[in-house]
Amino acid sequence: MSIEAKLAELGIDLPEAAAPVASYQPLVVSGSTAYISGQLPFVGGKLVTGKLGDTVMLEQGQEAARACGLMILAQLKAAGLLERVERVVKLGGFVASVPSFSDQPKVVNGCSDLMAEVFGEAGKHARSAVGVPVLPLDAAVEVDAIVALKP
Amino acid sequence: MSIEAKLAELGIDLPEAAAPVASYQPLVVSGSTAYISGQLPFVGGKLVTGKLGDTVMLEQGQEAARACGLMILAQLKAAGLLERVERVVKLGGFVASVPSFSDQPKVVNGCSDLMAEVFGEAGKHARSAVGVPVLPLDAAVEVDAIVALKP
Amino acid sequence: MSIEAKLAELGIDLPEAAAPVASYQPLVVSGSTAYISGQLPFVGGKLVTGKLGDTVMLEQGQEAARACGLMILAQLKAAGLLERVERVVKLGGFVASVPSFSDQPKVVNGCSDLMAEVFGEAGKHARSAVGVPVLPLDAAVEVDAIVALKP
Repeated sequence: MSIEAKLAELGIDLPEAAAPVASYQPLVVSGSTAYISGQLPFVGGKLVTGKLGDTVMLEQGQEAARACGLMILAQLKAAGLLERVERVVKLGGFVASVPSFSDQPKVVNGCSDLMAEVFGEAGKHARSAVGVPVLPLDAAVEVDAIVALKP
Repeated sequence: MSIEAKLAELGIDLPEAAAPVASYQPLVVSGSTAYISGQLPFVGGKLVTGKLGDTVMLEQGQEAARACGLMILAQLKAAGLLERVERVVKLGGFVASVPSFSDQPKVVNGCSDLMAEVFGEAGKHARSAVGVPVLPLDAAVEVDAIVALKP
Repeated sequence: MSIEAKLAELGIDLPEAAAPVASYQPLVVSGSTAYISGQLPFVGGKLVTGKLGDTVMLEQGQEAARACGLMILAQLKAAGLLERVERVVKLGGFVASVPSFSDQPKVVNGCSDLMAEVFGEAGKHARSAVGVPVLPLDAAVEVDAIVALKP
């Protein structure tokens, strides 16, 4: 089954690939590896802002992380690479957090679980998840990715 | 000398490879490169928690970083890759820090020095080390790694 | 035109490549990829310290990010790789920030714009930019890089 068909089966409608908010590219291919820039969480076209442990609840954080993942998929699609994903290799999850909030892994699962749903075994990835005091535009979550491509 | 023999010579007993705390893999191989997920510091089976500059002293932070490194080695061993390490390419060190603590390099050396001890020249790596306000489960340090593998 | 000639044309004088502040290498090559360690911002030989949103203004932060970029170029030159840059693949920008400062993208542009100036199309990269509470030696900005090399 193609990834597009899988997305349709899951009822997932990808957002439009967001333009970079500064002087960089959303995705660069080097050899057979795609590096996707840190993606911010847009839900219903609106950026999810604020910090976990403050104004953003765990469930909202998870939804935000999933939205980052959808944007990673949208960037792959915009680059014509969605059907060439061989393996989601690594995700880097940054969670805007007050110093007492330590559930970053549960938050970033919103993105990780999406990759497993969409790509199955090929979606199982290495990951780091950390708290940060603040993200660009006050986003709640940012996720970047390394993806191996089929020839 | 094999790495296992080197570890024995150094008196290093690797911990059991920790299961991921969420929806990801501890290690993914892409081509000849292994990506190891961010590892947390277990000393005597107990997670080292707290922040540098607050309740965690420099020496404890260094020991925690070394523990992250031991877990990186444990993950390589669990994946059957310990003897195939060609080069430790890059470490990413995240140190839970209050805003006035700026000795992250000394902390992460706990991990870097371990790699040099165990792998010699092949253990010399590129690195980034940064402060973060908080880490998963309130861990004091998290380190992820990129490792080049022999065929 | 060689990169050295381009730098001369732009009036850019690279700093001396900084020695690592701890137990790691400034640059490691794996296959055809160079990983450059997180570089700190030296302007006029002096480290730019402090946090954005506190004592460091946006323009100073941008200059600091550019200084990190110059040090990335200096490390490539010191390794004899400056003329072998095929593509700047990925930059990781860490900006020391108070929790209310969310202009990390504008700060890290100081480094991104430099890469575009020096390398043209080959300088267009993927990127992540995040806030952190504190960096090594109280630096204002740290940037690491992944660079693809020509054979």
